Amino acid sequence: MRVGVLGSGMVGQTIGSRLVELGHEVRMGSRQARNERAVEWAEGAGQGASEGSFADAAEFGELLVNATAGTASVEALQAAGAGNLAGKVLVDVANAMDFSGGPPPKLAVCNDDSLGERIQAAFPEARVVKALNTINAAVMVAPGELGSSTHIFVSGNDEAAKGEVTALLRSFGWGAENVINLGDIASARGVEMYLPLWLRLMGALGTPAFNIAVVRAD
Amino acid sequence: MRVGVLGSGMVGQTIGSRLVELGHEVRMGSRQARNERAVEWAEGAGQGASEGSFADAAEFGELLVNATAGTASVEALQAAGAGNLAGKVLVDVANAMDFSGGPPPKLAVCNDDSLGERIQAAFPEARVVKALNTINAAVMVAPGELGSSTHIFVSGNDEAAKGEVTALLRSFGWGAENVINLGDIASARGVEMYLPLWLRLMGALGTPAFNIAVVRAD
Repeated sequence: MRVGVLGSGMVGQTIGSRLVELGHEVRMGSRQARNERAVEWAEGAGQGASEGSFADAAEFGELLVNATAGTASVEALQAAGAGNLAGKVLVDVANAMDFSGGPPPKLAVCNDDSLGERIQAAFPEARVVKALNTINAAVMVAPGELGSSTHIFVSGNDEAAKGEVTALLRSFGWGAENVINLGDIASARGVEMYLPLWLRLMGALGTPAFNIAVVRAD
Repeated sequence: MRVGVLGSGMVGQTIGSRLVELGHEVRMGSRQARNERAVEWAEGAGQGASEGSFADAAEFGELLVNATAGTASVEALQAAGAGNLAGKVLVDVANAMDFSGGPPPKLAVCNDDSLGERIQAAFPEARVVKALNTINAAVMVAPGELGSSTHIFVSGNDEAAKGEVTALLRSFGWGAENVINLGDIASARGVEMYLPLWLRLMGALGTPAFNIAVVRAD
């Protein structure tokens, strides 16, 4: 499959490399083509890896991943072009963390709205699925490293799109039973508002290499 | 120990009954003494259970539990009287859920503040510890029902107070290793903002009898 990964940071690079490893063709998009990090990534990631502008990556991909900084995501997707998103599954892994007030970061959007919802509202023809924003990049693509089974979540209005994303997550190593369908895109509020707890847990545990398992009574 | 439980709803009743079962003397406080639910609870909970006003319960308790509705907690604690809280451990288990806009509820306070912080700010001499707000009442007092080990959290500025609360939680059945110290009272933002995810998980799982386990790489 051809995948457009928007964003050349750690998350975009990690997901992009895993996708290439799995045999997909991946184009990493940045604000401007020939972004230094993206070029370096494309050269290192192997055959199937390329880079370009947000619009280049969005046009290229049959499936798209939003791995831009959450506070800049809508702008990045506008640069990608609504027409290049239309009808495609758009996996939104971003968190809209606002560091402007110093640590700890606040969320730029929460409570009665979410980044996932804002993206879906701005691009009604995209099939937005919020996923993977609750874990560190390394855990996203190698869940087995945690030793025991943990959970991730999908939120979106399009059940078929969530199914496609779940299949992709399975190829990353997640078990089907470890991907919980939380409901419509408004459930992105839940996974986005989990971030402050995640940040405190990272502090308490001294590592970002962790995740939560949902345990229910039998 | 003498414990004052403020609030006569499901959470207050469940915690109160467990404390009585463990041999503590518990006074349940309500807006007005002789609250119907509190009287019924006190009659059913056995020796050591009594009821009264918020002020009666707060004066009685050496340790206090805030189990009032989060949006009414500061007012309830004002009725309890700052002098009755001074120097005492106050376990805040409340969530400030605002149902005024219809479902899903919003949080009345979040992101750059939390109910735990508001209570600590309003009652600087109380030793506020946020705890147990991440789980259903039944799970709070019977963690073993979940079958496998899960985690809860304590947040507060007073390390000794968190230690006392952890000891109390151990008497409820929580292992010492299952109580994670998240840091100061500002970390209450994390556990309070987890609520929207908790609510969606309850919907997805079809039961409130669940909790999360934090799993880290070895």
